Amino acid sequence: MSEHVEVNEAEIDLSQLRVVLMETSHPGNVGSAARAMKTMGLSDLVLVAPKLAAPQRKQEAIALASGALDVLNNSRIVATLEEALADTIFAVGFTARKRELAHRHVDLREASTIVIQTINDNAAQKVALVFGNEAMCLSNEDIDRCQLLASVPANPKYSSLNLAQTVQVAAYEMMMAAGKFHVAADAPRAIATNGDVEALMVHIEEAAVQSGYLNPDLPKRFSTRLRRLFTRAQLEPEEVGMLRGLIASFQHGSSQNKN
Amino acid sequence: MSEHVEVNEAEIDLSQLRVVLMETSHPGNVGSAARAMKTMGLSDLVLVAPKLAAPQRKQEAIALASGALDVLNNSRIVATLEEALADTIFAVGFTARKRELAHRHVDLREASTIVIQTINDNAAQKVALVFGNEAMCLSNEDIDRCQLLASVPANPKYSSLNLAQTVQVAAYEMMMAAGKFHVAADAPRAIATNGDVEALMVHIEEAAVQSGYLNPDLPKRFSTRLRRLFTRAQLEPEEVGMLRGLIASFQHGSSQNKN
Repeated sequence: MSEHVEVNEAEIDLSQLRVVLMETSHPGNVGSAARAMKTMGLSDLVLVAPKLAAPQRKQEAIALASGALDVLNNSRIVATLEEALADTIFAVGFTARKRELAHRHVDLREASTIVIQTINDNAAQKVALVFGNEAMCLSNEDIDRCQLLASVPANPKYSSLNLAQTVQVAAYEMMMAAGKFHVAADAPRAIATNGDVEALMVHIEEAAVQSGYLNPDLPKRFSTRLRRLFTRAQLEPEEVGMLRGLIASFQHGSSQNKN
Repeated sequence: MSEHVEVNEAEIDLSQLRVVLMETSHPGNVGSAARAMKTMGLSDLVLVAPKLAAPQRKQEAIALASGALDVLNNSRIVATLEEALADTIFAVGFTARKRELAHRHVDLREASTIVIQTINDNAAQKVALVFGNEAMCLSNEDIDRCQLLASVPANPKYSSLNLAQTVQVAAYEMMMAAGKFHVAADAPRAIATNGDVEALMVHIEEAAVQSGYLNPDLPKRFSTRLRRLFTRAQLEPEEVGMLRGLIASFQHGSSQNKN
């Protein structure tokens, strides 16, 4: 792995990223793809010669777009891939299989690094991700218009991701590479002091000796194991309190027993 | 970063990975999830209390499973998450939002590294990925049975990945992590099954009620805290045995007390 330059979050503009869908035949897939894009912060959708003619079929796209109707409504329809790419500086063609061509062909993760680097280096310029129709095929002519080919790694015995799934995984990797959205950092968890944990240890050992479980002359293995468990768990103060209450209740029972 | 030993890819057995879907209400989503699993080489599917009653609805699952009908046919239906996890050593719960709980919560990529490490360290043991219903909700009770929480990073303004999309991205990351896997030279640690830990929980609760520490009508908070502690600690089989021996000795004392 070579070292990477950390990119400032604000500098990566995912609106520079365009998704191009070639000759889609199922409007529902366009809706699902729009939704997948939006979940990862992408919004620029271009359809090349889609089969969306009948108005009632448009409803399928709308239904499956769900809350991503804005992506669908702002999408553009063009006749050729050439038009879709006219204002882009870089295009990645997605293919399911390795092709015997002179094109550079990488896996999705590597492609995402290259794409985000390109976006970062070329402010306000467009980069396209080009997806074939539902059979996941790009013609050789389409491929010749792309600067890079990419594949989503998959089970070699069953690699048939559908269009929306492919767009989803691709958009996810782009967003991850951009480092744009992170899960918020964990809220700090209160952790008991080692002193409190030691006092708990002493308490448990004492109770274990009282109950006859532990031979006071040979406590070592038991204590070692228990300390390891507690260290690993990083007990919280409230947990220490709860365990001490429980042990005390056990002691109370067995001390009564002895009287 | 410390140095790592390269592990042969063939050693990572993704059949150790189980997908658990909670109370799915749309059979079609189960089919799509099965397909998503298979594209990334996963095959062990368990459905917890699914709403699949009507036979005609089963057809939806079959239609959307496409070539992954084998995954669907080999899936198991169980009544509770506890059953689904009984023979697992580690469970990751997927949640859309950050929760205010003391659980460890990481993003999907980090989770995939942890999961593959766990699989590698525990040959032939099962690890579960637990997904909520279509509203992407896991109850607090479900969460308490998981050792780790994970989220798929997404657009904060529109993070509604559907179930199949979430499974797709999660399965993809698991496969990617398995393919690139590097392991530290640490000796693997044996981990108790969730079933054994549940039996320990029942044993402690019983003893705590006997000792008077626990009101059997209000066991909830105690049990929740204790389960969380144990899931976080990832108990070893010997530790479970040791704790059960200790509890039994406490019970022996207090039962003598009562006679």
